[in-house]
Amino acid sequence: MREGFHNDLQRLTGHLAEMCDAAAHAMQRATEALVNADLDLAQQVIAGDDALDALRAQCEEDAYALLALQAPVAGDLRRVLAVVYCAEKVERMGDLAAHVADTARFAHPDPAVPADLIPTFERMGRLDAEMAERVAGQVRAGTDGFAELRQADEAVDALHADLLAAITGENWQHDQRTAVTAALTTRFYERFADQAVSVAKRLEFANTGDLPG
Amino acid sequence: MREGFHNDLQRLTGHLAEMCDAAAHAMQRATEALVNADLDLAQQVIAGDDALDALRAQCEEDAYALLALQAPVAGDLRRVLAVVYCAEKVERMGDLAAHVADTARFAHPDPAVPADLIPTFERMGRLDAEMAERVAGQVRAGTDGFAELRQADEAVDALHADLLAAITGENWQHDQRTAVTAALTTRFYERFADQAVSVAKRLEFANTGDLPG
Repeated sequence: MREGFHNDLQRLTGHLAEMCDAAAHAMQRATEALVNADLDLAQQVIAGDDALDALRAQCEEDAYALLALQAPVAGDLRRVLAVVYCAEKVERMGDLAAHVADTARFAHPDPAVPADLIPTFERMGRLDAEMAERVAGQVRAGTDGFAELRQADEAVDALHADLLAAITGENWQHDQRTAVTAALTTRFYERFADQAVSVAKRLEFANTGDLPG
Repeated sequence: MREGFHNDLQRLTGHLAEMCDAAAHAMQRATEALVNADLDLAQQVIAGDDALDALRAQCEEDAYALLALQAPVAGDLRRVLAVVYCAEKVERMGDLAAHVADTARFAHPDPAVPADLIPTFERMGRLDAEMAERVAGQVRAGTDGFAELRQADEAVDALHADLLAAITGENWQHDQRTAVTAALTTRFYERFADQAVSVAKRLEFANTGDLPG
């Protein structure tokens, strides 16, 4: 049974790592669609989100089967439940990438965000995608790196704060519609990073039994 | 063991119902703080969120103990895992209520939202709190009501769309800072309702084994 369990768990974590890669890829492409006002790419990202939702449902079903058949305890139980928890967070990351793409789609043929903010959105997109990739690596290696992810999250939070300050500042050159779109969009990036941190936190809990602060 | 299991499960769902009530109460009070620019009340809501976070941690710990000790299967397994899933969503509802309160606190002594939008925010707040209360009732009764919750969510979505249209429309009388604050705040209400729907959906899954569409 133990060997069977560990094979099943490995397949499960493999699916979770795949989901993380898909979320990273989605955010990277959504950002490209946003900054280049690329309608085709935006539509691809939005359509691609279904695959991530399906992977998550599969992950959860497999985890339930594993719990019911093998009734793992202690660290093994924590690891299985961590996959269920993390899969839900990563699905949400995919939703947020799709929201970014949807913002580009909705504004098309106009750009959704003004040219002077594009470099900051590009940096947030890169940081978000890197965070998801790092989490994928941790899932595959069976390691965790909450402190590292939290550091990246702080960089995203700082960019988010910079953007909000620019958007709500005295020198804002655009209308309030553009302000609202930019503010909601930057929040999608900030929430994506938050979910990645939650995943890293849960991986650390799965490995150690302690939730990092 | 079966009797022990059902007592444990009942205590677990009792805690989840308490969490739903707390989230309803938090959103109702956060809305009062927002529309009356009431700093004291806002601070109470923000401080009160810790209690909800603690309840959630307790729920999860109890669920893990139950899984490890009793290894439930089929419907029992679904019900225990549903509590873990729902507790996380309800904790998030509390976070969103705290975000609304924080918006009021940050703007104080000014009102965070312009007077003409207050009736709509009040309606969203009432709908959100009612949704959380209904979910609490369903948790206690061991029933579910996904269709009903989805209907309430549609009403919240419609108000959210109305607000965004007003905020980004030609007749907007305020500056873009006020626009951005109002847009982010209406999204907190919309996301709160989304979480309540997720909870109702998961309760239906726990009861029937089918995820409603």
